[in-house]
Order: sequence, then structure tokens, then C-alpha cells
Amino acid sequence: MTDERSARVLLSLIGEPGDPRLTGLVADLGAVAVLEALRSQSKHGELRESLTERLRAARPDAVMAAAEKRGIRFVTPDCDEWPEGLDDLANSPLLHERGGVPVGLWVRGALRLDEVCRTAVAVVGARSATTYGVGVAGDLAATVAEAGTTVVSGAAFGIDQAAHRGALAVRGSTVAVLASGADRPYPQAHTELLDYIAEVGSVVSEAPPGAAPRRIRFLARNRLIAALTQGTVVVEAAVRSGALNTAHWAAGLNRMLMGVPGPVTSATSQGVHQLMRTKNALVVTGGADVLEATAEVGSRYVEREQGPPDHRDSLTGTQRQVLDAVPVIRAAAAASIARSAGLPAGTVASALAELFEAGLVERSGERWRLSSRLRGSEHDAS
Amino acid sequence: MTDERSARVLLSLIGEPGDPRLTGLVADLGAVAVLEALRSQSKHGELRESLTERLRAARPDAVMAAAEKRGIRFVTPDCDEWPEGLDDLANSPLLHERGGVPVGLWVRGALRLDEVCRTAVAVVGARSATTYGVGVAGDLAATVAEAGTTVVSGAAFGIDQAAHRGALAVRGSTVAVLASGADRPYPQAHTELLDYIAEVGSVVSEAPPGAAPRRIRFLARNRLIAALTQGTVVVEAAVRSGALNTAHWAAGLNRMLMGVPGPVTSATSQGVHQLMRTKNALVVTGGADVLEATAEVGSRYVEREQGPPDHRDSLTGTQRQVLDAVPVIRAAAAASIARSAGLPAGTVASALAELFEAGLVERSGERWRLSSRLRGSEHDAS
Repeated sequence: MTDERSARVLLSLIGEPGDPRLTGLVADLGAVAVLEALRSQSKHGELRESLTERLRAARPDAVMAAAEKRGIRFVTPDCDEWPEGLDDLANSPLLHERGGVPVGLWVRGALRLDEVCRTAVAVVGARSATTYGVGVAGDLAATVAEAGTTVVSGAAFGIDQAAHRGALAVRGSTVAVLASGADRPYPQAHTELLDYIAEVGSVVSEAPPGAAPRRIRFLARNRLIAALTQGTVVVEAAVRSGALNTAHWAAGLNRMLMGVPGPVTSATSQGVHQLMRTKNALVVTGGADVLEATAEVGSRYVEREQGPPDHRDSLTGTQRQVLDAVPVIRAAAAASIARSAGLPAGTVASALAELFEAGLVERSGERWRLSSRLRGSEHDAS
Repeated sequence: MTDERSARVLLSLIGEPGDPRLTGLVADLGAVAVLEALRSQSKHGELRESLTERLRAARPDAVMAAAEKRGIRFVTPDCDEWPEGLDDLANSPLLHERGGVPVGLWVRGALRLDEVCRTAVAVVGARSATTYGVGVAGDLAATVAEAGTTVVSGAAFGIDQAAHRGALAVRGSTVAVLASGADRPYPQAHTELLDYIAEVGSVVSEAPPGAAPRRIRFLARNRLIAALTQGTVVVEAAVRSGALNTAHWAAGLNRMLMGVPGPVTSATSQGVHQLMRTKNALVVTGGADVLEATAEVGSRYVEREQGPPDHRDSLTGTQRQVLDAVPVIRAAAAASIARSAGLPAGTVASALAELFEAGLVERSGERWRLSSRLRGSEHDAS
């Protein structure tokens, strides 16, 4: 007699991450019953057939012991630290024949996964990112992490790496979700990065320890990145980029989908612009925009960069009308300015005096023009 | 006894472009009655007071004769060539105390204004544009103009200039709307450009011949750019840019508002991104997007650039699942691939044969991996 947890461990070892047949059956019947069905002597059933070999080979006790030694634990929906966002996967549509709530997650890291993901944003994008994309991803992640929001990504080269690093650089919280086992750094060049993330954040995988990265596992992994977070930001992505798969998961899970614009001439921004055009992705230009978009209304105040103050803001309507009628180069008489402004001469005369006081106009004899500090910057504007 | 047209000429000479008091009165009472009221001996009324001097000085016959000599005609709502889009200004809110239907337009150019503006898009933006913005504006305008849509802009330095030039370069139709008189090129450096536009397109102004550019006239002018077109594209604009004023007119007039994204690190793209975030401006990445957005559904087919064809598109679901499970580097046996894919061995064997046929996988002995053309490009994808 197996308990539910042990059954999930075993199913995790033999099933492919996000195989919707398996996640669907477990949701419907529970792991114990699914396992019993797989072990039955029946010769029927494609799933049963394809898993028989793995079932025979699986050594759950050995894997669990090895995992424990490496600081990896198995987290199931029954655990306190199960992030509830994952349950949204129960009702989301399949993408690339992957989907469903994972039977469990392998987690390497000291923090509780539910707490780490309480406020979390995914920052993902192209591996072949540009200097621009890497810079923006790092800054954005740093701003987000500094505000206490966890940055979730996939530890790939390019944007993913920049996102994790941006968060780490401000001692923020970050989670790497892998397609390979949580003990198997991929890409290998990120072994140290992932060790560091495991130390201060979490390294998570649906695939069991030792599992190799496979394209299909990346596709399954992407749904976790979307589900674990309140929103996904795509920083750079070509039109066929895998980051768009994560974006589609985010949209399918009703998460906030965001994109960072870039030059329309850059291939690695095309996919992002496509998301804005076809998936209504929100345009975000930095971490402040992301925090604003994902925050509950009023729960978070972020200092936003504003344009330089406009001297016009402090003027009365009449003063503004007069100022607008003052010539830029060739000074004009008050009467001519009054005609331009369409205002009575008396009104204009006093307004000119006030504008002169404020340093906005200058006079030469009886004629007026804009002061030098306004000239050039304000005049024509299509 | 003055006729309506002559009254409008005179009002055009004495009124400020877009002065809402004047445009409002003319809409309510007609030009003849407004003129009579202005000429009355009453001492009351601020508008009357401020226009008295101009009324005394106005020489409509001389202006008309001079205008005719320079190939400039006065177009009023009673003319056949009056573009009906301008009438939408009757009900739009004021911006910067400007608004309303112009009493008339001064037009320099051989083409009928209504025909030129039948399908027209405004392409506007920063004077201090970047190389990126200028390039994109030119290409976008050329694509739009090549499809038979008129490019309307303000003849300023930077984006405006690039837009006109892009249209001219493909012998397309373009309209320059000026804040100064139609005979008074501004900036002066664009004298030749404006002469050329007058030759093949139209140069338009609400201000009478000889009128100088004033900031307030630019603000009035911007509403015409928006009203004469079915949509406005902002290519680059800083947060305080005048191009945003045109964008706000477009939004207020229920025209399609579009923006070209750029690097978030570029000050001249900040205003555009702001329009996308706060005014729901549509993200457009080139002329094709603009044509699509402004076309009546189905009325125009534009060849769109697509991403490179994906070999996956032509595969069956099973083939795709198997391909996704094939290792990138280290070749694997069919049985191992079957486990990865979660598919029966027989299914996998025949799928591998098909994929081999298609050149998507390669074999070494009994083991399989992705063919070299797929390696690297397809594998991991966060």
C-alpha cells in the first residue's frame, strides 16, 4: 500500500513533465489510483504501455536519498509550501500538448516556495539577447526585486541570466525554474549562478533529479514560470522565440502579460511587439511599470520618473495664451502680441509684465520676445 | 452686404487659427453674422475688442490677389474639395484653448484636398529625432504612400521631414500642414521641400498667407493634422513633445492612434511608450501595420513579413512530440526517446524514420539526435 506522496514521487520519476494524460489522471483519480492502474497486468492503454519500462526501472528510495543529500526536497500539493498559483494549471488549455498541475516539484533552496512566489514576476526572453535587452532586463529585475518582488526566470543565457543577476545584485529574491533536474545545471556554464540562486532563492524543477534537458521539458517548464508568478515580462524575443511560449502560458493563465518595447529594426524585439499587437501585452518600460501593473491597486507606491517640469504648468490660462503669442526671434510690440493672442491690450500688458517677472520673456525697448532659456526648446512642435 | 465666403476670408485674416470663440461663433451664427457683430459699434465683448484693430487693418482683396498669384486658394466648407474629416472638429474638446472647425484653409497645391485626404495617415514626431526614428519614419511613410495612402505631416525637422521625404521618394502623395502661412516656409531650411510638396501634393494652413509661426499656431495646426487623416502615427516623441499634442487630438477625434516603439533607454521614445500605456496607442512596427490598422476590413491586402518558416508547422502532433524528445547533442536510443516523449516504442520508431527522411534528425548507429541544422536554434527556450 503506497501513500499519496510516495505515489507522486514515483509518478514524477516515470512521467514526463506536463504530460497532460498523467497530470489529468492524477487530478481525476489521485496518484495512488493512477499508480495502481499503471501497475495492473492489463495489456491495454498507451500511457500504461509507454511508462511500463520506466516504472520497472524507477528507484524512488534511492532518488529520494540522493536528492536529500543534495538539499533537494519534493513538494506536492499537500505540502504547506505548495504555491497555490500552480493549481490554476488545472483548468488552463494545453500548449504543445503539455499542461496540467505538476504531480510535484523538486525544490533546491532554503526558502518556502509559497512565500517566495507570493509576489513574483517572471522576466524572460531571448537567449541571443542584445546588449540593450540584457541591460534592460537586469535593471528591470533589480527594480522589481528591490521592491520585494521575486524574479522568476529560466536560467538560460541572455535575458534569463540578466534577470536573475539583476535580482541577485540587489540581494533580491529569485527563482530559477529548470527543464532539467534541479541538481543538473543547464546550461552548464550557469552552474555557479544556479548554486548561488539555490543558496539565496530557489531552484525548481518538475523533472526529477538527474533529468536531462529536452525541448519538450522546456515547453512544460515554461508553464510553471507563468503559473508561479502574477505576471510575465518578455524583454526580447524573436518571432519564433521560446519566450513567447511562456507568454502564451501567462495569457492562458490570466496572468498579467507585459513586454518591453525595443527598436522595430531589431529582430529580437519583433516577438515582443507581436505580443503587444496580438496578445494585448502591456507595454512596460522598466521595473516601475511592472510593479504598478502587478500591484493590487494602491498597495504599492512607486516613484516614477517624470518629464522635466514645464514652466507652463504654473501659469494662468491668460499668461499662457500671451506667452504662446510672443515671438521667438524677432521681438514684437505688445499690441502685435495682443493681436496674435486675440486678447485685449490691457490684459496682454499686465501678462507680459508677469512673464517678464518670471524670466520667461525679455524686452528690447518696447518690444518683447521669448527669453533665451525658452528659445529653441518650446517653439514649434508638430 | 458680404457673402459667406468673403466673410470667411476676412475672419481668417483677423482671427487666430483655432480660436474657439471665433470657430464656435461661426458654427453657431455663420460668418456673415459674426462679421456684422464684430463691426457693430458696441463697446462690449472681449473678442470684439481684441479683433477691432485687426479688422481695421485687414485688406482681404489684396491678400486674395497675392495668394492667387502664389497659387494659393482659400477653401471653405462650401467648397467641393472641403475634406469632411475637418467637420469632426465641431464636436471635439478643446486642447490648449484651441479647437473648432477652421473658418477656411489656405491651400497651395494642384490636387483636390478632399481627394488627397480620402485615405491619409499622419506621421509625426520629434524634431530632435534619432537616426533610428528618422529611418523608421521614412520607411514607414514610403510603405504607406506606396499603397496609395497620403502621408500628412507638419514639415518640421526630424520625423516630419523624414515622413514627407519617404512619401516623395516613392512618388507618393503627401500633405504638409503649416502653422505659418502656406507661402511662408517654416523652417526656412525646408523651403525647397515645401515647394516640392506643393507641386506634387498640398501645402495647407489655417493661417493666412504671410502669417508667422507662433507656438499657439502650432497647437492649432496639430488638430488639423489629426482631423485630416484616418490615423496618426507617432514615431518618436519625448514626454513633453509637441507630437503628443497631435496624438491627443487624434484620440479626441476618435482617429486611430498609433505609435512606433523604440528602445526604452531612448528619451525620444518615452513619449510614444507613454501613449501606448495611457492612451492605448496601437503598437505599429512599420507601414504594413499602419495600413492594416487604418484599412477598412478586407479592403486592402498587404504582404506582411513573416518569421522564417518553421519546419514544425508541417509535422503531425506525434512527429512533433518525438522530435521534441530527441536529444540535441548526445544521441539517444529510440527506446530512451520513447520514454522522453511518453509514446509507445513502435510509434516513436516510425516517427523517427519520418523525421530522418525530412532531414530533421540524424542517426549514429542505433542512436538519434537533432540534425545539425536544428541544433542550437531550436533547443531550449525559456
